[in-house]
Amino acid sequence: MTRLFALILLCAAPAFAADPLPSWNDGPAKQSIFDFVAKVTKEGGPDFVPVAERIATFDNDGTLWCEQPLPVQLSFTLDRVKFLATRHIEWKVKEPFSSLLKGDLKGALAGGEHAIVELMMATHAGMTTVEFEQIVKDWLATARHPKYERPYTECVYQPMLELLAYMRANGFKTFIVSGGGIDFMRPWAEPVYGIPPEQVVGSSIKTKFELRDGKPVLLRLPELAFIDDKTGKPVGIHHFIGRRPIAAFGNSDGDQQMLEYTTIDNPRPSFGLIVHHTDAEREYAYDRQSLLARLDNALDEAPQRGWTVVDMKTDWKIIFPPDSQSNSRE
Amino acid sequence: MTRLFALILLCAAPAFAADPLPSWNDGPAKQSIFDFVAKVTKEGGPDFVPVAERIATFDNDGTLWCEQPLPVQLSFTLDRVKFLATRHIEWKVKEPFSSLLKGDLKGALAGGEHAIVELMMATHAGMTTVEFEQIVKDWLATARHPKYERPYTECVYQPMLELLAYMRANGFKTFIVSGGGIDFMRPWAEPVYGIPPEQVVGSSIKTKFELRDGKPVLLRLPELAFIDDKTGKPVGIHHFIGRRPIAAFGNSDGDQQMLEYTTIDNPRPSFGLIVHHTDAEREYAYDRQSLLARLDNALDEAPQRGWTVVDMKTDWKIIFPPDSQSNSRE
Repeated sequence: MTRLFALILLCAAPAFAADPLPSWNDGPAKQSIFDFVAKVTKEGGPDFVPVAERIATFDNDGTLWCEQPLPVQLSFTLDRVKFLATRHIEWKVKEPFSSLLKGDLKGALAGGEHAIVELMMATHAGMTTVEFEQIVKDWLATARHPKYERPYTECVYQPMLELLAYMRANGFKTFIVSGGGIDFMRPWAEPVYGIPPEQVVGSSIKTKFELRDGKPVLLRLPELAFIDDKTGKPVGIHHFIGRRPIAAFGNSDGDQQMLEYTTIDNPRPSFGLIVHHTDAEREYAYDRQSLLARLDNALDEAPQRGWTVVDMKTDWKIIFPPDSQSNSRE
Repeated sequence: MTRLFALILLCAAPAFAADPLPSWNDGPAKQSIFDFVAKVTKEGGPDFVPVAERIATFDNDGTLWCEQPLPVQLSFTLDRVKFLATRHIEWKVKEPFSSLLKGDLKGALAGGEHAIVELMMATHAGMTTVEFEQIVKDWLATARHPKYERPYTECVYQPMLELLAYMRANGFKTFIVSGGGIDFMRPWAEPVYGIPPEQVVGSSIKTKFELRDGKPVLLRLPELAFIDDKTGKPVGIHHFIGRRPIAAFGNSDGDQQMLEYTTIDNPRPSFGLIVHHTDAEREYAYDRQSLLARLDNALDEAPQRGWTVVDMKTDWKIIFPPDSQSNSRE
């Protein structure tokens, strides 16, 4: 009898399993995730989706990690311009570098997209892919978020880390689909998110293969290859993944088309979710008026499409990982 | 004692396991594969490679399936031109269509790369991605290889199917890295090779996202996005996969740079293999003089780099799957 009892307990164990999303408060957002995963994983059920088709795509900036007060890659870019300025005395009188080096960020970005591209090319091209990876790693190792005073890779959302793990535990393949640079994310996405390089989709510049002193290198060229934002996101998803996601997660109008591509007229059951930044105290509050991360049209579209809108202030118990390295170092 | 004996047998079982490459004759090529896989999977050994880094890339045309007398995608293109000709009366007097429709393939291809691109764009663009996928599937369901009189998807190399399965059984993630069109391969790569769409790298044209009658579609545009051949292969590998393979498999000079990128100066142990088409009787014999699938420089480079060269005639017991559907229908 004792053995039988133990066996029953063992079989019943999942019913007592710990909450897979402990940092999420109970409520409609959390429940909508559980409901979707339950129905697509129920074998024999009408909404069952085979494991191979369980593709989930996640935006990065503002969805998986903090994008305020500046997108992290922009902070990286600004730091690199300052670092490289000693080798480029011409930048002293050349915009957008000149304003930036005087500490006038607004002036530097006055040139709009053209100015940003120029800053990007000056800092992201002209080296090999291996060299760039090391530059990113070195910067992340020392740079600190201005508000939280911890590494940017520790300013990731704990509830989303749990969500990534929960989706994977249910047979989903998790992808990043970000407007950010693909080679800026790949060096750290695997240790931080558990997402390997081959599941990172992002914007890119062209590269060129050559044998340098007999050794193969890929040289990063100052030429845009692909912008993975807005209508570019479904394009990027098709290009890299080759099938439609059944779940997509974003936080801005840059994710609107990805959410549409995932949830409208999909032959499979599908799920869309928007992280709404409502927590000025613990993080930042922004949406319709944000310059670089506007959430406006997608927020209006959400109710009509049945997209879940996460209210960070009420839906999330904590924002960042509590036991991060920087905390334990204090 | 009986129980202990059973346990010993159980533990020793792998030593008696069936040959994972039964269609390969014993010899240096087969042995080099076993040796490489054994050393990179030996935990605690000096050459051990973690599972996450076990990336293997395979060319498709001539490496995984038959590319003679014409590359399959070119046969598809020619059939599509003939099919679409009724809607394009202007093709009767316009090259390269005119020659092609008269049955003069050589004349049609006289315009070189430009002519091929024109034929491709006329047949591969102008529809949605979903429509194109269906066109490919429909064509493959009815088209037959002129020599073997079976579907092209059954003109795949049985020894390579075994190799794909063997690599995966040893923790490798297998990718196609082909000069062929990515969307021409994805519809059938998973059922035929066990390679999912997101692990297919190839040449591509641009697509455009739009909502058509409220439904999301990706429209295929007549504009090249990327040519995944020669120096483009390492570029494509970096773009799609984001890390260096440790094993690469090809059959022509189009794969030379992929093999170099994989095996030269790689911090990990690495493996390169070339399928040499030496079997005029069972398949085709071609190398240095081939127009569309030349193997010349890479063959010269092989000994110096330690790449395995497979002699199809002596190394492979059979070429195609013996129990394919078309055989059993006969």
